[in-house]
Amino acid sequence: MASISEVLEAANCIGLVAFALSGVFKGINAKLDLLGVSILGFLTALGGGIVRDILVNSVPKALTGISDITTTALGIFLALLLYKVFRKDITGTKPVKIIDAAGLSAFSVTGFLVGAQSGLNGFGIVLLGVITGTGGGLISELLTGKVPSVLKEDFYASCSLIGGILFLITYGKFSTEVSTGITFVTILTLRLTAILKGWRLPRFGLYEERD
Amino acid sequence: MASISEVLEAANCIGLVAFALSGVFKGINAKLDLLGVSILGFLTALGGGIVRDILVNSVPKALTGISDITTTALGIFLALLLYKVFRKDITGTKPVKIIDAAGLSAFSVTGFLVGAQSGLNGFGIVLLGVITGTGGGLISELLTGKVPSVLKEDFYASCSLIGGILFLITYGKFSTEVSTGITFVTILTLRLTAILKGWRLPRFGLYEERD
Amino acid sequence: MASISEVLEAANCIGLVAFALSGVFKGINAKLDLLGVSILGFLTALGGGIVRDILVNSVPKALTGISDITTTALGIFLALLLYKVFRKDITGTKPVKIIDAAGLSAFSVTGFLVGAQSGLNGFGIVLLGVITGTGGGLISELLTGKVPSVLKEDFYASCSLIGGILFLITYGKFSTEVSTGITFVTILTLRLTAILKGWRLPRFGLYEERD
Repeated sequence: MASISEVLEAANCIGLVAFALSGVFKGINAKLDLLGVSILGFLTALGGGIVRDILVNSVPKALTGISDITTTALGIFLALLLYKVFRKDITGTKPVKIIDAAGLSAFSVTGFLVGAQSGLNGFGIVLLGVITGTGGGLISELLTGKVPSVLKEDFYASCSLIGGILFLITYGKFSTEVSTGITFVTILTLRLTAILKGWRLPRFGLYEERD
Repeated sequence: MASISEVLEAANCIGLVAFALSGVFKGINAKLDLLGVSILGFLTALGGGIVRDILVNSVPKALTGISDITTTALGIFLALLLYKVFRKDITGTKPVKIIDAAGLSAFSVTGFLVGAQSGLNGFGIVLLGVITGTGGGLISELLTGKVPSVLKEDFYASCSLIGGILFLITYGKFSTEVSTGITFVTILTLRLTAILKGWRLPRFGLYEERD
Repeated sequence: MASISEVLEAANCIGLVAFALSGVFKGINAKLDLLGVSILGFLTALGGGIVRDILVNSVPKALTGISDITTTALGIFLALLLYKVFRKDITGTKPVKIIDAAGLSAFSVTGFLVGAQSGLNGFGIVLLGVITGTGGGLISELLTGKVPSVLKEDFYASCSLIGGILFLITYGKFSTEVSTGITFVTILTLRLTAILKGWRLPRFGLYEERD
């Protein structure tokens, strides 16, 4: 049977492709040029991890290793191909959302682990995972002049957050394998359920408008 | 009598609460969901210090220590409570502006000190303090799609800037206690006067419009 | 004859002035106040280098050294003077675009060199140069609520990108002098040609609109 670290690695690859795809289509929607679209693909896939590494004071792995870059480049190429074929934004479709969920889960868990190994406090650990999982998307929406969707809609960062709290509870008590495994499965299950059921958090507004 | 470092610490706490409050209401105004509102509270209170620590190449204190996080969480909780009770944005009121001024002053001074102790040049020291004092607010406005108010209105960052120049002049000449004390009092006085008198800087415009 | 490092240093100075100028006029266009305009000048000139240094985990040179700051301050002063005299945005004129091209080339090459010396992978090296060359402009456009022009128009970051690939091919094979020299001249030639010929990259759009 596959070990949890193998599962995480696979989910990480899937996530890079899904995030690159999402970045490319965000760029196309914003009418960026070819370079802008590619940059958005790279930043969406790798931005969360880069910010994570900056926060724990190390040179971003995405800039030193080779595998994440290659996978992301493939994802961007695939996205441009899909755009040529379908001529429409496929990021809202269920298959893409499902592979995106794998990425969110794997990225979050990696962030929690890096945080715990860097001696952060509980808040820092959870924050690092949430940033790793959602930071890339946030950066790309910021660059295209949007209020990051992660802040205002959908049950997305919340899955990562709940996973983080579970990680805090289990890490140290159980083996790292078990703790990361439970966290990964929980985030994935939460996110997939949220996609199916259309969960979202309560929203605020100073005046009771419909929008 | 309280030492200057005790005063600074108290002002820092007050500032975290004021900044968290301001972040929460910015989030509510932007119709974010519960998580988005909380994230904005955290980023407004802690973002300036996080950027400061990244710039001098250390792991952000907010992610390793425990006290700032706890105070900020209390501030967010208080803000949500105040929102439930008053149902309106209280960040424009004088009491909130005054406790915010305490935060601006304490955060700025902390930034100047960290800059001086990290061997930055004069520009770097002043910049670090201004970023510590105003960076959190800037990040939260950026995330909600606004041009940071610190860049275009009010006599706010200017107080921090003037304090920084005073710090440069006094640091090394007098004891750290005296130098930080004078700087803190000056920023606070400037900001409180600016609130009372409605000071602002000259603005530019390529065409002489009224706005 | 001047060595390549002397040429680079001169181009770097010219670039700081050009970038500061561009930042100041972006700030004036966005109706910022005096402080905001100055901050935008500093960030446009120094922001790319600051992000570069953060990425390779060192304290930004702009905050420790003295020469870049001074040159940038002069550039800001010059820009405010030019604004007083001409009362219009001169950043779109050919002379400014040409000195800006010198900056883009010098900044990019510096970034490639820092990347190579920090042990980044090829992607990281190219990215570091592109960020050094275009990051300051991107930050200032982000702060004034615009979608960064580098992502959507003009043949600008592309010059840096092509230079980066050339640098990857030549670095290590030839002396650093030759490699950086060829790269610098290539970026400069590409950018100047792009200005003259009005080159741009293909743009995408999900619906075939005219804009």
